[in-house]
Amino acid sequence: MNTLDWNQLSAAEQAAALRRPALEQSGREAQVAGIITKVREGGDAALLDLTRTLDRAERDTLELTEAEITAASERVDDELKAAIELAIGNIEAFHRAQLPTPVIQDTSPGVRCELHFQPITKVGLYVPGGSAPLVSTVMMLAIPARLAGCERVVLCSPPPINDAIVYTAKRCGVDAIYALGGAQAVAAMAYGSETVTKVDKIFGPGNAWVTEAKQQVSSDVDGAAIDMPAGPSEVLVIADEFADADFIASDLLSQAEHGPDSQVILVTPSRDFAARVDEALARQLTALSRADIARRALSESRTFICSNLEQAAEISNAYAPEHLIVQTENPRALLPRLKNAGSIFLGAWTPESVGDYASGTNHTLPTYGYARTYSSLGLADYQRRYTVQELSPQGLRAIGPAVELLAATETLDAHKNAVTLRLAKLEKQA
Amino acid sequence: MNTLDWNQLSAAEQAAALRRPALEQSGREAQVAGIITKVREGGDAALLDLTRTLDRAERDTLELTEAEITAASERVDDELKAAIELAIGNIEAFHRAQLPTPVIQDTSPGVRCELHFQPITKVGLYVPGGSAPLVSTVMMLAIPARLAGCERVVLCSPPPINDAIVYTAKRCGVDAIYALGGAQAVAAMAYGSETVTKVDKIFGPGNAWVTEAKQQVSSDVDGAAIDMPAGPSEVLVIADEFADADFIASDLLSQAEHGPDSQVILVTPSRDFAARVDEALARQLTALSRADIARRALSESRTFICSNLEQAAEISNAYAPEHLIVQTENPRALLPRLKNAGSIFLGAWTPESVGDYASGTNHTLPTYGYARTYSSLGLADYQRRYTVQELSPQGLRAIGPAVELLAATETLDAHKNAVTLRLAKLEKQA
Repeated sequence: MNTLDWNQLSAAEQAAALRRPALEQSGREAQVAGIITKVREGGDAALLDLTRTLDRAERDTLELTEAEITAASERVDDELKAAIELAIGNIEAFHRAQLPTPVIQDTSPGVRCELHFQPITKVGLYVPGGSAPLVSTVMMLAIPARLAGCERVVLCSPPPINDAIVYTAKRCGVDAIYALGGAQAVAAMAYGSETVTKVDKIFGPGNAWVTEAKQQVSSDVDGAAIDMPAGPSEVLVIADEFADADFIASDLLSQAEHGPDSQVILVTPSRDFAARVDEALARQLTALSRADIARRALSESRTFICSNLEQAAEISNAYAPEHLIVQTENPRALLPRLKNAGSIFLGAWTPESVGDYASGTNHTLPTYGYARTYSSLGLADYQRRYTVQELSPQGLRAIGPAVELLAATETLDAHKNAVTLRLAKLEKQA
Repeated sequence: MNTLDWNQLSAAEQAAALRRPALEQSGREAQVAGIITKVREGGDAALLDLTRTLDRAERDTLELTEAEITAASERVDDELKAAIELAIGNIEAFHRAQLPTPVIQDTSPGVRCELHFQPITKVGLYVPGGSAPLVSTVMMLAIPARLAGCERVVLCSPPPINDAIVYTAKRCGVDAIYALGGAQAVAAMAYGSETVTKVDKIFGPGNAWVTEAKQQVSSDVDGAAIDMPAGPSEVLVIADEFADADFIASDLLSQAEHGPDSQVILVTPSRDFAARVDEALARQLTALSRADIARRALSESRTFICSNLEQAAEISNAYAPEHLIVQTENPRALLPRLKNAGSIFLGAWTPESVGDYASGTNHTLPTYGYARTYSSLGLADYQRRYTVQELSPQGLRAIGPAVELLAATETLDAHKNAVTLRLAKLEKQA
């Protein structure tokens, strides 16, 4: 890791050291727009054609049949099914605990204001393909959708879809599985086709094509909303000399193996500890199947030597990491100082990978500094909040004159008149 | 109003009748991008220059001084101050009731998952200028910011800023008031200048320049997040023959006077009632100062005659109105059927204008069909949700093997190794 002494850096150098690399412009705007147009105009036929040419997969139908789902599920071995079951139990427990309670508040006598929650009607989930079946992505996206009460939950993944993905989708209550990938999958869910349900909101990660397509459909009011902006995965670790260097090295490598653009940062007050982590990294790297990817990510990684843990917290707050691991003598003591992180992992026995798979928290998190304003994916992202109000005659008498005056101040006569008419009627009735 | 019999329309005609007019392309993309570049490069000097040329206002400073604020506040009359006070009390009460409680859940023994809430650090509020001082906008944007705990709350409004806006901003705890309008105000808050605080998120309505600038800064990761997409204001009213035609006409006019592009829809099973509303509209229109605007909006408005109230709810759900007024014999009975509305007003004594000003609900609502996925503005929009997790050795022993298997399935060795190393260490300790 590249080791820098934080307090030797100027403010400008500190800012530069925390800067993420510029996001590559997708350069695919026009191509993706072309795919979206094809899908909107050609429907199922266009989707099957795009699947043939882009995914090189021959299928006659887009939706997996019950027979295909059953056959795929039977091919998943029982040990994996048991692990999935354990993860589902924890993810369900934590997301069920997020179910909101309506707010009902009388703000004045006779003036009742309410905040209610409603599921988004139809949602679409995207699960990338590739060699590794991302069963965790299926669980993280589908479980809160079902708990939130969405009426229809559909899932797209490029063919051939791995059996474990099919099994997990079915197990998590997904209503329809489409063998569709890339920009064409996003377009299909945003605008619908003869077979594919048009959804209100699209969730899930993807490559540059998927990301660009999500961006485009979300800026079209006839398209679909999306979960959050995308960016490369990242971790920041705060550790002191009480941490286990082997554990920290394994956590840094968990991030580094995601991709060569993964961001890996260690912040520690102990120069000696940083050196021990470097040794452990070298040792562990040799055993990894994705060592090349991890090595490239580590070549861009940084260790900051800081004065103390308070300063470590400030550095983390300035960076706003997706994942924040805290392995110190008393990690919970630092929690009140920690801001702008997507998910925080406390203590030696809480590696990031538990949250990626099975502790119960969601692994869909804001990256690239978006943690300053965006939230960790949760049940709330599958619902909408709306207000309800009801005034009694007493309530209108109490606040009506203030509304009349405020409306008059804003020169909105009709707003005022809607109250004046009613107060006059109440006057007559009295 | 243009009256249509819903059940005489084909499905395509029904969809067309609910379609909103296409949003005018701003055509200002390049000009707004130019203003943003000027502000980023020129800072305060550029802002003062733009204010001179675009707003035709001469000022030496951007921020209002304490002396200016005090003088402006003293010029606001006491009756208006009392109305503002009443509104603030109700808005505070309803938004305070929205303060969230952290979720703490042990998903398995020794596996603790938590959901916490944190204020967004710095927020910027935009209040449009013009002849009418939008004091309600100040209250709706600033009160939840302060209750959420945002560290810094700043406000921009084009000069000269009306005294009532200055007074209300100060009263609601805004930290700094900048005499800045249009795209340059949005750029200043998104990127900062010598005087203007760079904020994390920008809230508030505005004209086409402001809307375009918000769009542009929100798609730049170095810019700022924004509250929600913009669109013209709209109301849908569900009424039966028990409603008061004068009341309904006054509510429709409250919407129509906002602007010629305001959307006004009445849905009723009673043809006779619809005719009575038309008469009341004609009567009330003559007395309005903004009658011309209202008349133009009404020329595009629609009344749908439907079979019954259940069908009225379906029509409303398909349209997804910003404001939904229900004046029927038993309005609350219809509530469980109502979806996709920003704010719902129940009963004869609850005109939309009470929610616009003083009942306590927020008047910042999703328009243009965005109510299908976006929420009514609330305390939650000024906070971010993040997760925390902590495992004990027992917790890791319980879920570690499942994490190892799931990570191996996804071919992420290092993710698996982070658990394996720790389980081995626990084994040795035992």
